[in-house]
This record gives sequence, C-alpha cells and structure tokens, in this order.
Amino acid sequence: MSAELSDTENLAQRLDVVESSAAIRDLASNYCHGFDKRDRDLFLSIWWDDSIWDIGPPFGVFEGLAGVREALETVLWPAWEESHHLCANHVISFQGRDDARAVCDVDCMGRLAGEVECQIVGATYTDLLQRRDNQWKILRRDVQIHYFNPIPGAVLVAPAKT
Amino acid sequence: MSAELSDTENLAQRLDVVESSAAIRDLASNYCHGFDKRDRDLFLSIWWDDSIWDIGPPFGVFEGLAGVREALETVLWPAWEESHHLCANHVISFQGRDDARAVCDVDCMGRLAGEVECQIVGATYTDLLQRRDNQWKILRRDVQIHYFNPIPGAVLVAPAKT
Amino acid sequence: MSAELSDTENLAQRLDVVESSAAIRDLASNYCHGFDKRDRDLFLSIWWDDSIWDIGPPFGVFEGLAGVREALETVLWPAWEESHHLCANHVISFQGRDDARAVCDVDCMGRLAGEVECQIVGATYTDLLQRRDNQWKILRRDVQIHYFNPIPGAVLVAPAKT
Repeated sequence: MSAELSDTENLAQRLDVVESSAAIRDLASNYCHGFDKRDRDLFLSIWWDDSIWDIGPPFGVFEGLAGVREALETVLWPAWEESHHLCANHVISFQGRDDARAVCDVDCMGRLAGEVECQIVGATYTDLLQRRDNQWKILRRDVQIHYFNPIPGAVLVAPAKT
Repeated sequence: MSAELSDTENLAQRLDVVESSAAIRDLASNYCHGFDKRDRDLFLSIWWDDSIWDIGPPFGVFEGLAGVREALETVLWPAWEESHHLCANHVISFQGRDDARAVCDVDCMGRLAGEVECQIVGATYTDLLQRRDNQWKILRRDVQIHYFNPIPGAVLVAPAKT
Repeated sequence: MSAELSDTENLAQRLDVVESSAAIRDLASNYCHGFDKRDRDLFLSIWWDDSIWDIGPPFGVFEGLAGVREALETVLWPAWEESHHLCANHVISFQGRDDARAVCDVDCMGRLAGEVECQIVGATYTDLLQRRDNQWKILRRDVQIHYFNPIPGAVLVAPAKT
C-alpha cells in the first residue's frame, strides 16, 4: 500500500504547486483589478499585514498594510484620474512549499488627476509571496518603472452612452 | 479502501478545477485570436447557442449565436481594418462544478475601416461560463469600454516584405 | 488494484499536461524577460540547439542556438535602446506527450538605438515546443509582425531617481 499512498501523496504535492501558482497569479491580477476599479477591499486583500510595497521614484516605499492603504488612498488614487494595468509575463519560482518569488511585467494606460492626456507607464514587478494558514498573499512587491510618459495629443475618453 | 478512493476522487476534483480554468482561459484567448485573425469558426466556437454578448456603446447587445455572428460579420469586422487585442488579468471564480464567472482586462490597438491612424481601446470583460457535455463555453460576456481613442499622427503599418 | 492504479496513472497524465502547459507558458514569458532585461543566459535557455527563429522582415531567419545568439547580440539588442514586451493570449495544443504547438500575441513598446521616440510593435508568435529529457524548450518560433511604428512626439523616459 505504501507505494500507492506515495503516488497519491506525490500527485497531491504536484497539484499543490499548480494550485499555488494559480493563487499567486490571481494576486497579480487582483492588484490590477483592485487598483484600477478602485476596489479597496480587493486591493488590500492581496497583501500580508507586514508587506512592503516599494514603488520607487516618484512614489516611494510603503510598509505594512496600513502603509499600503495610505499609499493607495492618499498618494496613488488621488494621482490618477483613471488607470488601466495589464499584467503579463508572470513567472513563479518556489523557494519551498510556502514561499515563492515571482516576476511580471505591466503596461498601464491612464490619465493623471485633472488631465485629459493619456499617460503610458511600463514597469516590472518583483514579488515575494508567502502562504500562511493556507492562503497566499504578497509579502513584498518591488516596482521598477521603465517609462512614465504622456502620449502628446492623445486623450482617454469612454464612448458616449446612447 | 474508501479513504484512498476518496483521496483519488479528491485529487480528480481539484484537477478538474485546474483543467476547467485552463479551458476558460483559452476561451478568452481565442476570442482575441478569432476576432483579430478573422477566424470565424474559432470565434464562434467559444459561445453557447444562447449566449449574450453585451458590448455596450457604441456597438450594442447581441443575443444567441446568430446574434454574435451577425455582430461579428456586419458590425465589428467591417468597422475595423485591423485589430490586435491583448487579454490579461484573468480571474475565475467557480459557482459550482459547471458554472463560473471570470473577469479580465483587454487592450486593443487597431485601425478603423479606411483609416491609417492608430486607435487604442481599453476594456474589461465580465463573463459567465458554463460547462455542458464536458465543454466550457461563454454564456454571457459584458464589455465595459474604458476608452476608445486615436493616437494622433500614429499609423499602423507592417514592415515591408523584402 | 488495477483500476485504482489506472486512476492514479490517469491523474498523473492529466497533471503532466497541466505542468507542461505551465512550463511552455514560462518559455514565452522568459523570452520577454530575457530579451528585455538583456539576460543572455535566460534568453538562450528557452531554445533547443536546433531551434529556428523566423522573425521575418525586417530581421530575417535565424537557425540553431548559435544563430539565435547571433541574432540577439548582433542584430536585435543593438537595434533596440530598450524594449518592453507583453505576451498574452497564449493557447497551447498538444500533438503528443512531448510535442506541442502554441500561439500567443505580443505588444512591445521600446526605443530604437539612439532614439528617444517611442516605437510600438504588435506581433503574433507561432511556436513548436518539444520536451527532451523532461525539459520543454522552443523548437521553432515564427514571428508575424502586424505593425512597427513610432508614436510621434512620445518619448520613453524613466522617472528621475530622487
């Protein structure tokens, strides 16, 4: 019997990696959904209490869930009239059953507060993820912004509702 | 034996969720491939017969596979000279073994009919998915367009074939 | 016992497809990370020795790992001051346990050598993947570039470090 149990256990462990990867990917997606759709609860749900969010210039480093919330509410949401992130190229490497690193790239189109002109931002996120009590969340996200520029003369406007 | 069977059954159910997620993700990808590469069969294969495709302004609501096909062939493909969707941030939540909701974001670059100027579109798709006879398809897709604008002076041109 | 073993084997085979899909997806992501972050080892690690990389106009066809490396180091990296690919819409179809086809779409923002102006590129990658000695790599990548154009007046600049 032990060989069979071992087979089942082996499958369960491999499946756990697959499910963990999906959960980690959802965190990166919900960062975009929470931020762009201004869903505070969703955005805050992806971070551990002791998370670090290092956005770098021009925004800064934010520590703890309270710091993340303050960055969101007092710095970032006020800075953006609207934003639209697309996250891709997500690669995860596990450092253990409950620890992982991930890297992904993001494009963001948006408008800064009070402006109609379109801004384009490109960045890379380097993440530490941790599982606690069966739940994966972000422990640290380092943001490297590659460019942050307007598209001269381009505006962002939704189609008129008829 | 029952505990072991239960292990295997449990693994099979968890694996079914993983495989279903992949199938659902493929639907969102094939929406882009079918639409942009003008592959009618591929595009129509992702919808159930009783699907609803609510694109909102400026395009409208389309019902049933016949409605989807009509929208595609008489409204959307004629409106676009070319289009290039990128779908990302795909998050799925299961409402049962055979029902799921999903949300994803899309950027689209393209040219409208008869134009050379580049248009940029950003949208969010909110989907209902259903599995029937072991196959997942879209039951309803609601499109929220965030912006739909030209980039003044930018054209879309493929490199010359040498 | 045989039915149970068969159950376990069946699960193992299904899980192998899921794990293979993740490995194949990582290849497409690491193409972007390796290319854009100028990580030669990472970029070269995704190709088999006998790979073909057909980029088409204006770049050409490159054969073998040596050809891929030459294209990278003498043609592409010198041509780009910086580049930022986003890969999405990744759909995989298996032709056997160790052979797969995949298609994905990519947007790239960047600057050509010596320029400050932003270039936008949109392309589709059609891939052959093969597993050898338990490892998946790209055997052939065909690139179809849909557009490759500047955004007049738009520059790419990283935020100033304070």
